[in-house]
Amino acid sequence: MLLQPGDKLVMIGDSVTDAGRARPIAEGLFNPYGSGYPNFVYSMLTALYPEYMLHIVNVGSSGNNVTNLEERWQTDVLDLNPDWVSIMIGVNDVWRQFDLQNMPKTWVMPDLYRKTLKSLIERTKPNVKGIFLLTPIYWELNENDAMNARVREYAQICREVAEETGAIFVDVQKNVDSVLNRIKHSCYFSWDRVHPNNPGHYVIARSLLDAMGVEYSRS
Amino acid sequence: MLLQPGDKLVMIGDSVTDAGRARPIAEGLFNPYGSGYPNFVYSMLTALYPEYMLHIVNVGSSGNNVTNLEERWQTDVLDLNPDWVSIMIGVNDVWRQFDLQNMPKTWVMPDLYRKTLKSLIERTKPNVKGIFLLTPIYWELNENDAMNARVREYAQICREVAEETGAIFVDVQKNVDSVLNRIKHSCYFSWDRVHPNNPGHYVIARSLLDAMGVEYSRS
Amino acid sequence: MLLQPGDKLVMIGDSVTDAGRARPIAEGLFNPYGSGYPNFVYSMLTALYPEYMLHIVNVGSSGNNVTNLEERWQTDVLDLNPDWVSIMIGVNDVWRQFDLQNMPKTWVMPDLYRKTLKSLIERTKPNVKGIFLLTPIYWELNENDAMNARVREYAQICREVAEETGAIFVDVQKNVDSVLNRIKHSCYFSWDRVHPNNPGHYVIARSLLDAMGVEYSRS
Amino acid sequence: MLLQPGDKLVMIGDSVTDAGRARPIAEGLFNPYGSGYPNFVYSMLTALYPEYMLHIVNVGSSGNNVTNLEERWQTDVLDLNPDWVSIMIGVNDVWRQFDLQNMPKTWVMPDLYRKTLKSLIERTKPNVKGIFLLTPIYWELNENDAMNARVREYAQICREVAEETGAIFVDVQKNVDSVLNRIKHSCYFSWDRVHPNNPGHYVIARSLLDAMGVEYSRS
Amino acid sequence: MLLQPGDKLVMIGDSVTDAGRARPIAEGLFNPYGSGYPNFVYSMLTALYPEYMLHIVNVGSSGNNVTNLEERWQTDVLDLNPDWVSIMIGVNDVWRQFDLQNMPKTWVMPDLYRKTLKSLIERTKPNVKGIFLLTPIYWELNENDAMNARVREYAQICREVAEETGAIFVDVQKNVDSVLNRIKHSCYFSWDRVHPNNPGHYVIARSLLDAMGVEYSRS
Amino acid sequence: MLLQPGDKLVMIGDSVTDAGRARPIAEGLFNPYGSGYPNFVYSMLTALYPEYMLHIVNVGSSGNNVTNLEERWQTDVLDLNPDWVSIMIGVNDVWRQFDLQNMPKTWVMPDLYRKTLKSLIERTKPNVKGIFLLTPIYWELNENDAMNARVREYAQICREVAEETGAIFVDVQKNVDSVLNRIKHSCYFSWDRVHPNNPGHYVIARSLLDAMGVEYSRS
Amino acid sequence: MLLQPGDKLVMIGDSVTDAGRARPIAEGLFNPYGSGYPNFVYSMLTALYPEYMLHIVNVGSSGNNVTNLEERWQTDVLDLNPDWVSIMIGVNDVWRQFDLQNMPKTWVMPDLYRKTLKSLIERTKPNVKGIFLLTPIYWELNENDAMNARVREYAQICREVAEETGAIFVDVQKNVDSVLNRIKHSCYFSWDRVHPNNPGHYVIARSLLDAMGVEYSRS
Amino acid sequence: MLLQPGDKLVMIGDSVTDAGRARPIAEGLFNPYGSGYPNFVYSMLTALYPEYMLHIVNVGSSGNNVTNLEERWQTDVLDLNPDWVSIMIGVNDVWRQFDLQNMPKTWVMPDLYRKTLKSLIERTKPNVKGIFLLTPIYWELNENDAMNARVREYAQICREVAEETGAIFVDVQKNVDSVLNRIKHSCYFSWDRVHPNNPGHYVIARSLLDAMGVEYSRS
Repeated sequence: MLLQPGDKLVMIGDSVTDAGRARPIAEGLFNPYGSGYPNFVYSMLTALYPEYMLHIVNVGSSGNNVTNLEERWQTDVLDLNPDWVSIMIGVNDVWRQFDLQNMPKTWVMPDLYRKTLKSLIERTKPNVKGIFLLTPIYWELNENDAMNARVREYAQICREVAEETGAIFVDVQKNVDSVLNRIKHSCYFSWDRVHPNNPGHYVIARSLLDAMGVEYSRS
Repeated sequence: MLLQPGDKLVMIGDSVTDAGRARPIAEGLFNPYGSGYPNFVYSMLTALYPEYMLHIVNVGSSGNNVTNLEERWQTDVLDLNPDWVSIMIGVNDVWRQFDLQNMPKTWVMPDLYRKTLKSLIERTKPNVKGIFLLTPIYWELNENDAMNARVREYAQICREVAEETGAIFVDVQKNVDSVLNRIKHSCYFSWDRVHPNNPGHYVIARSLLDAMGVEYSRS
Repeated sequence: MLLQPGDKLVMIGDSVTDAGRARPIAEGLFNPYGSGYPNFVYSMLTALYPEYMLHIVNVGSSGNNVTNLEERWQTDVLDLNPDWVSIMIGVNDVWRQFDLQNMPKTWVMPDLYRKTLKSLIERTKPNVKGIFLLTPIYWELNENDAMNARVREYAQICREVAEETGAIFVDVQKNVDSVLNRIKHSCYFSWDRVHPNNPGHYVIARSLLDAMGVEYSRS
Repeated sequence: MLLQPGDKLVMIGDSVTDAGRARPIAEGLFNPYGSGYPNFVYSMLTALYPEYMLHIVNVGSSGNNVTNLEERWQTDVLDLNPDWVSIMIGVNDVWRQFDLQNMPKTWVMPDLYRKTLKSLIERTKPNVKGIFLLTPIYWELNENDAMNARVREYAQICREVAEETGAIFVDVQKNVDSVLNRIKHSCYFSWDRVHPNNPGHYVIARSLLDAMGVEYSRS
Repeated sequence: MLLQPGDKLVMIGDSVTDAGRARPIAEGLFNPYGSGYPNFVYSMLTALYPEYMLHIVNVGSSGNNVTNLEERWQTDVLDLNPDWVSIMIGVNDVWRQFDLQNMPKTWVMPDLYRKTLKSLIERTKPNVKGIFLLTPIYWELNENDAMNARVREYAQICREVAEETGAIFVDVQKNVDSVLNRIKHSCYFSWDRVHPNNPGHYVIARSLLDAMGVEYSRS
Repeated sequence: MLLQPGDKLVMIGDSVTDAGRARPIAEGLFNPYGSGYPNFVYSMLTALYPEYMLHIVNVGSSGNNVTNLEERWQTDVLDLNPDWVSIMIGVNDVWRQFDLQNMPKTWVMPDLYRKTLKSLIERTKPNVKGIFLLTPIYWELNENDAMNARVREYAQICREVAEETGAIFVDVQKNVDSVLNRIKHSCYFSWDRVHPNNPGHYVIARSLLDAMGVEYSRS
Repeated sequence: MLLQPGDKLVMIGDSVTDAGRARPIAEGLFNPYGSGYPNFVYSMLTALYPEYMLHIVNVGSSGNNVTNLEERWQTDVLDLNPDWVSIMIGVNDVWRQFDLQNMPKTWVMPDLYRKTLKSLIERTKPNVKGIFLLTPIYWELNENDAMNARVREYAQICREVAEETGAIFVDVQKNVDSVLNRIKHSCYFSWDRVHPNNPGHYVIARSLLDAMGVEYSRS
Repeated sequence: MLLQPGDKLVMIGDSVTDAGRARPIAEGLFNPYGSGYPNFVYSMLTALYPEYMLHIVNVGSSGNNVTNLEERWQTDVLDLNPDWVSIMIGVNDVWRQFDLQNMPKTWVMPDLYRKTLKSLIERTKPNVKGIFLLTPIYWELNENDAMNARVREYAQICREVAEETGAIFVDVQKNVDSVLNRIKHSCYFSWDRVHPNNPGHYVIARSLLDAMGVEYSRS
């Protein structure tokens, strides 16, 4: 298990991370983490490693793309002095290229995505024990779906950025695909192929927990 | 134009038809028709044929499948004494087979769909001037998508039922496909491939208005 | 069809244009255009010309008269860099002369109306492909109605300003009159002779769509 | 002054009478009479004749026509044992003929209006000291307005019914006309020519108070 | 009638004047005057003198005492350029001496009341046609009630200030007493002896309308 | 102290007893007793005699007069099997004679008050350990106030009924008078002379606690 | 893993099971399971065994004790035709003995608890594949705490009932104790020692998932 | 009785003091003191010593620890010019050490608690007649409970600070213990062992009232 006693983990991302979290900073009492994968991560890390006294923070914000992360990186990540950071971003960068095909100013194209993401990680790496870089995901197996192809293109950028920066790459899309391959249709896990239901969130959470080396049978 | 002065049209269906209509019966003052295609139909028929004094009624209900229509057919269609009826049903009959893959009691399979739909039309046909049978639609071109294939299977049943009963078949899916073929991705028209945005609703409305033979330049 | 692929149209006006639009700028996802004629224009242009990727913006504001437009012209029109602008203003300029007969400071008299409207168009014309100037309308045929006569006086000013500035004049009142002439009373289209119901909004939308040269049977 | 100490007056009508009154019966504490003319009548009768201990009841209901009054006449008028009854009904009987030109079942035509009104008065007359029959009103002077002409036709029916039954005829329309003749436009008193603002409600209230012979300078 | 065509009347006071008025300034459309005596004054002046085009403004504010009026006198009275001003203040100045017997800082004692009131009137008098100074009132006849005695002491100060400044003195308490003398108990007009019901508000309104010389039978 | 371990006390009355209690029966967890004197009684009895495990129930209902108590006596008192009952009723029986001087059907006159109260107590006495009969109160010392005199007349009836039935008479009015005699005005304790503020509620509570023989210094 | 493809699991209990679930039956779309341990069970079973198409139902109800379960057992358990049932009940049976020490009718004593629980299981056992009987829990290690001792007494009854009936005993309290032994105080997991936070809910969920033999690393 | 006529008492603390008080300063009309012990103190002091005209202020704020008090001491205590101050603080200083065992920045350790508390009292003492220092309390008798032990450690610091500064020490915990010793479990008085129900609040109030030397039988 990578995290050590007393460690602090800051989780940032878009609506998939946000999932109704408390404002301005989701941490501490009264289950402020929303109903998404950070809630699973917080609940399971705390229950499995209670004496570690881990400090989890959710700062995901709905609608964010990577440039929005950049705008609030100082206050919402660096100022919180994390030991670990998890990042899951990119689906909005892509989505606007399809649902707002008529408004190009809302798009974040691959070069900007890559450059911004890399810069954020490089800026943060020296001050933390590790960074988890989760791929953006799309709940779809059809390779001919243009948005699906595009999300996977951005996931590939994530993989490359992780390699270049030493971030820990978490291939969430691979786990999503594994699940989708066992059922008839993705709407069993996601209404719109972007926002998962709670089982879908567990697929994401598990990807991250596995990357941490969590022991599920610890007691 | 098929509708004649003084005619009454009752529109029934699921959430695509409902679209936030007033309860219990959407007709008359204060724009009660919701924000979907029935609103376009009402607005354009009234503006283009004001002296016809057409009477439009929306009785679509979110979540309905064809067996739900059957349960309320007497009160919500026959008792209203329509001259014309429009029916757009089937997407929930199919959808539950995918998003509730684990709850088979919520599914309406092809045979029941066909039989129920046919029975409703046959029961109604003698008392009205005509019935418009609109296909259920799915905002997706990929033929390998299991739900897409299934919706089109139900649309084909509609076509056959229309032929057998003499209902006026309205191939909405064909118009949807035509629009999708001109853009990069269906999410420009529909968030979840089932519920259209307002331009998507106009695609449906136009399918019906064309089937009625509406003159758009009438004055 | 005047609009070309990629064009942006900004629609400004009063409550008839506003019709419950989103704030601060109505554009993009989730049907933000309100329930008035801009919603018809957006829906039909997008459905009939999907590959044009037109960008429609609604910045109408309830209660506005022409001097209110002037106050927000820079931020709400020019800063948005439109290719086309539509303007429908004047009914509040007139109305206050009648429903607030006792508060003259709320009135906008003909000279100020003409001068302000002209100035806005002249200031904007060089930067856009075209400006649609829609007449203010009153849902009433009786020539002896003082407010009706006054609205038509302001519509005539619109016609003259359009001629002087090269704006595209859209005679909405003419279409309104055509519809009213075919029915018994204007309350079939407007509760208070100012705010139309949805069919009335289609009469306005159609006036603008016709002026654009839209093909209703395009596919 | 017609009313005597201890008398009870029940006021019935449509939305002009209702004006937001309390349910189910508007009487007693906490100003339950709504914001319309019954509130003026209650307030001024009580303040000018405090020792009379008059008991005022408002049972007006929005949207009512004369057949709706008939449906609830036993419970909402007769069962209350009034000494006096005021009736102001008819504008919805007429209005639906214009704003719902396409739904004839919502109309109350002159013969039914006359017959029902007369029957209600004849059924009540023997049990009360007097019945005030107020004309329905329309805030419009233009004789060519079809709805205006129709409302005045129903007002004339009121006059005739009053003569035939011995009800006290209150010509509210005459007082409305007198006020309208002194201003530029009816929207100074009524937004939609049916619902008055508070000054307009005082015009109605005064018509009734004058018919009662109220002394405004009593002390 | 003192008011002349085109005149503007600003009415200021405490909760009795406020009575739920609109913010920030109650004037113009949609009955913004609250449910108190200003609503009667507005409604009756407008209905009886429609062609006068009188402009009524209500700026009463709940909880105010005379020093609160002073704080907002410039913006809420002088900046509005009234032709006439009505003032009804003092009951809170007194009330706090009784319901907050334990918090002397909330009290406004007679000298401060007199001095402040006089100063406001003198500062305003040169710019207006006239000032109506209404007494604060208490709905109680018992002379031994300490608060009743105190309110009447402040009413007497009003009378003296009016004489010294040339303001038009309106003895509302006298009319209140006249009404109370004709019934068994003041709670028929006021729940707490300070806030009147609507008939009680008419007693106040009438005091002011009489002072203006209004003709109730004008037509 | 009259109450013994395990005893159950049911408190009934009007709005003074109700004071916002929970529905349908106020007992048990989450402070359901409202903010009035029953809350003081519950809190102090429980804190001073914790090991007594007393069971307090509040079934006061706003607006009730003695006939309303009679209507619900079986379900709200007898069916609860109390050991002790406290009754405080009468102020609404009197109040309506003054604030609804014009609606005599709302009054409960002395004979009916006496007869009903006596009957309730006689019907209950055999099944309980004791009944506390609290006087209705009026926060006013002036003997010339008609409502004050009337409330004291009803309090005297209480005293007589208590004597005749063996109920424990609790002279709350005497304690109220004692407090009022030490201050300048009753509005320090009651806004409208009927509903006390919290200190006023303690005056009532203490009257009852004293009648029970509570030891305030018990520990 | 005990559950087999297509199996249906009904989960019943009190507020710990309820945790804000949807009404009337929590199953199907839109994450209706509340925020407690059933949500973990549903999410993880569905994500780890997607092709099993398991059908999870939550019918926990806040405030329930075992007799409440009995009242709704037919409709809320048997009528749903489950393959598996999980039961977690008892903390309210105990709690009322402490927080309502003064209201013995609200208590469920050990004998009734045992008898009712056993009867429910025996009535159900023949129709299902298995019943999971979870112990009620208390987040406290101090053996001298009376309520803690009592909850453990009821947990022991569960163990005995499970042995006698062949239900699968799930010793949640043991897992709770294990977690508590590794931290300084139980309020890290539970505000009031009864309702866990989300990590606490995972402790419960894991107890059940372990009893099912779930493979956490399945893919 | 320590308090003298005209004295002002400011009560400060955390959620136990706050208990839903009005903002920004709880004083004066409409029972603004919340539902906690300050409401008992206000109600009973006012009812027992009405002619003293005592001025009670509640400035407790939920969640506060002693450093939060320090931040607002100038505005919320000194600027109010009290004659007496009551302080009840410390439970949050302790609680965070247990429910946020993983977030040490939220803890207030004993040295800081002592130092800050002492400084506040020394800064205030010269300007007031007296300061009541109430111990923080925990509704638990078990000495092995870590949080219980810690709260009592902070209570002991209070005792020492009181001795060093001359503040009046109020041993609330002793009274709490006395009550707890007479019942089976603390949840009869407190849901979570921190927030008391209303009887629990009376235990606190009584501790303070006793320290003041209040005569409960005064009249």
